[in-house]
Amino acid sequence: MSNASVTSDRDIAASGPYALAVDAMGGDSAPDIVLTGLDFAADRHPKARVLLIGDEKLLKPALAQHPKAARICEIRHAPASISMEMKPTAAIRVRGSSMRLAMESVASGEAHGVVSAGNSGAMLALAKIIVKAMPGISRPAMVAVEPSARGDVVMLDLGANIACDARNLVEFAIMGEAFAQAALGLPRPTIGLLNVGSEDLKGDERLRQAAERLRESVLSSQFHGFVEGHDITAGTTDVVVTDGFTGNVALKTGEGALKLAFALLKRVFKTNLLTRIGYLLVRPGLERMREWIDPRRYNGALFVGLNGIVVKSHGGADGEAFAAAIDVAMDAVTHKLNDRIRDRLEQLGMLEAGTASAAADKVTPEPVS
Amino acid sequence: MSNASVTSDRDIAASGPYALAVDAMGGDSAPDIVLTGLDFAADRHPKARVLLIGDEKLLKPALAQHPKAARICEIRHAPASISMEMKPTAAIRVRGSSMRLAMESVASGEAHGVVSAGNSGAMLALAKIIVKAMPGISRPAMVAVEPSARGDVVMLDLGANIACDARNLVEFAIMGEAFAQAALGLPRPTIGLLNVGSEDLKGDERLRQAAERLRESVLSSQFHGFVEGHDITAGTTDVVVTDGFTGNVALKTGEGALKLAFALLKRVFKTNLLTRIGYLLVRPGLERMREWIDPRRYNGALFVGLNGIVVKSHGGADGEAFAAAIDVAMDAVTHKLNDRIRDRLEQLGMLEAGTASAAADKVTPEPVS
Repeated sequence: MSNASVTSDRDIAASGPYALAVDAMGGDSAPDIVLTGLDFAADRHPKARVLLIGDEKLLKPALAQHPKAARICEIRHAPASISMEMKPTAAIRVRGSSMRLAMESVASGEAHGVVSAGNSGAMLALAKIIVKAMPGISRPAMVAVEPSARGDVVMLDLGANIACDARNLVEFAIMGEAFAQAALGLPRPTIGLLNVGSEDLKGDERLRQAAERLRESVLSSQFHGFVEGHDITAGTTDVVVTDGFTGNVALKTGEGALKLAFALLKRVFKTNLLTRIGYLLVRPGLERMREWIDPRRYNGALFVGLNGIVVKSHGGADGEAFAAAIDVAMDAVTHKLNDRIRDRLEQLGMLEAGTASAAADKVTPEPVS
Repeated sequence: MSNASVTSDRDIAASGPYALAVDAMGGDSAPDIVLTGLDFAADRHPKARVLLIGDEKLLKPALAQHPKAARICEIRHAPASISMEMKPTAAIRVRGSSMRLAMESVASGEAHGVVSAGNSGAMLALAKIIVKAMPGISRPAMVAVEPSARGDVVMLDLGANIACDARNLVEFAIMGEAFAQAALGLPRPTIGLLNVGSEDLKGDERLRQAAERLRESVLSSQFHGFVEGHDITAGTTDVVVTDGFTGNVALKTGEGALKLAFALLKRVFKTNLLTRIGYLLVRPGLERMREWIDPRRYNGALFVGLNGIVVKSHGGADGEAFAAAIDVAMDAVTHKLNDRIRDRLEQLGMLEAGTASAAADKVTPEPVS
C-alpha cells in the first residue's frame, strides 16, 4: 500500500519534475511577498525545485534580490497575468497567464503542485479545467487546518461547493482523512460530520445518508458521527466534514470570534497602570498564544481531489503566510496525498464514479474569499 | 403606528392576562432553577404577573422557599410533564403537560408569552401546533442576541428551519429587525444576509433573490447586503439573517472559539509566578470581559413569528441564565414585538401569504440544542 510511503524532498528533486510551480503574479503584493515566502521555503525545503512563473522582466531583477529563493527557483516567462478583480469566466480565457501556465505544468506532469495567492475564483475554475478532478471524485473541495483546544483540526469543504449531496460529503470525508494523515501526520484521524445536533436523527436526509455510508465503510472505526459547531474548536474530531457554505461561514465565524476575544483582551490590558504591568508579565505567553492561533500560520487552503496538488494562499498574505501555504503544498507532495486518496477510493469501491468529470468541470466560482 | 408604543409592566399587570406563563417542570434542574430565576425576575419586573405551571404538590412547598418569586407567581397545576429525552412526536400527544398548558394559556390570551427550559423539539412542535404561526409568516424562527465588538447582535434562524427559501429569509429579516428594536432598543437596526462573500454574485439563487427583495422593500435603507462569518462578531450589522442550519453552526462555532480563547488564556496565566501575578492585576477587567461574553447572559432564544411570545431557555441553565430568558420574553411582551412584525408585514404586503398555516403547522423538530 502506497499509504505508508513518503517521498523526501531529495527524491522529488531527483525524480525530474519540479516539486512546485509557483504563480509569481498572484496576490495583493505580488511578486514581493511570493519571493519573500520562497526565501523561507528555501530554508525549509532546500532540495525542492520550484518553477517560478510570471513576467520574466520583473522577476529576474527581483529574484536577484532574494538569493535564498534564487537557489531553488527557475523562472519561466508568462506573458499575461490574472488580476484579483477579473471574473472567473473571463480569467479562464486568458492564454499565457502565470496562473494558467502553473496549472498546465502540473497537468503535464512537470510539477507536482501549484501555489498561488491570486484570484480565488479564477484559480478554482482553472484547476478544474486544466488539472481536473481525480477519477472517483465528483467534487474537489477546499481543505485547511485550524486551531483547536486539542491541536490542529482539518476542515472541509471551505467554500468550493455551496450545495452538496451525501456522496459529496463521503468524498470530503475520504479526502479530509488523507489530508489529516499527510498534513498532521495522524495515522488514523477521526472524522466528524458537522450538524445541528449530535443525535442520529438530527439534520437532513443528505447528512443522515452520508453518516450511514461512512458507518458502513472501511472508515467506520474512525467515524465519530455528527459533531456540532463548538466541536470544531474543541477538537472533538481530527477532521470536520461539511458543505462549502457552512464550512466557509464556520471558518470565518471562528476566526472572527478569536479576533473579538483578542480585541476585548486588549481593552482589559489597557485599563490602567496595574493592568499594563499585568500585560508585561504575561506578554511572552500571550505572544505565543497569538502566534499559535494566528491565521497567517494557518494560511494555505488545499484544493483537494484534483490530479495534482493545488494550494490557494490568501490574497493579502505576507511572506511568512505565503511560506505556510508552500508548506501545505510540500506536505501534500512529499506525503503523497493523492495516492492516499486513490487507495481509499479503491477500498471503498468509489473509483468508477460516473459523475466525476461532468460535475467537476463545470465552472462554479464559489471560492474562499 | 403601534411600532412606537411601549406597554409598561404596570399596563400588563393591569390589563388582565398574565405577562408570562412559565413552565416550572422544564430543564435539567427543574423546578429549582426556574424558581431561582423567578426570584431575579421579581426584582426586575415587580409588576409582572406570572402563571407558574407544574406539579402543584411539588411547587407549593418550593415556592414557599422563594418569597420573591412567590410575590409575582400563581401556581397552576399540570398533571403531567415532558421529559428532556421524549421525542417531539410523542411529546405533543401528552395531554396536561406543563409545557402544553403554558402554550394553551398563550393561545387563549390568558398570558402574553411562555418561557420554558424544557425539551426543545417538543417546545417547537407544541408552539407551532398550539400558539401557531402569525398570519403572513410561513416559518417561525429561533432568534437570539450574541456579543460582538460593536455591542449586541441579533441572529436568526438558529435552528428551527434546516432548509429555507428566499421568502423565509425575507421573513427572518422582518422578524429580526423587529426583535432588534424590541430587545436592543435600536430605532433602525441594520440587516445583513449571511453568505460566503460580500459581493452581489456570491451564494446561491435563494440568497440573491432574498437580497433583491430586501433591496426593493421598505427595509432597503437598513439592508446592508451580504455579510460573512467574521462580520457576526465584528458587529458589521445589528441583525444577521441566515437559514437554521448555518445559523446554528455559526452560533455554536462562535461560542466554541471564545471558549478556546479563554482556555488558552488560562494556560498563559498559569505558566509561572510572574504570570500569576499578572493575572491578579488584570482579574477585575478579565471578569467583566468573561461576564460580558458569558453564554448565560445571552440565554433565551425567542421562537419568533408565532401568535404569542415563546422563549426557550437552555436546558442546562442556572437561575441567573433562566432569569435572562425571562428578560428576553418580557422585552418582547412590553415592547410589543408581534405588533411591530405585523406592521412590517403589512407595509411589505406580505400579510396574505397563503403558505403560512400549511408549512408552519408541520412538525419538523430541529431545535437549537
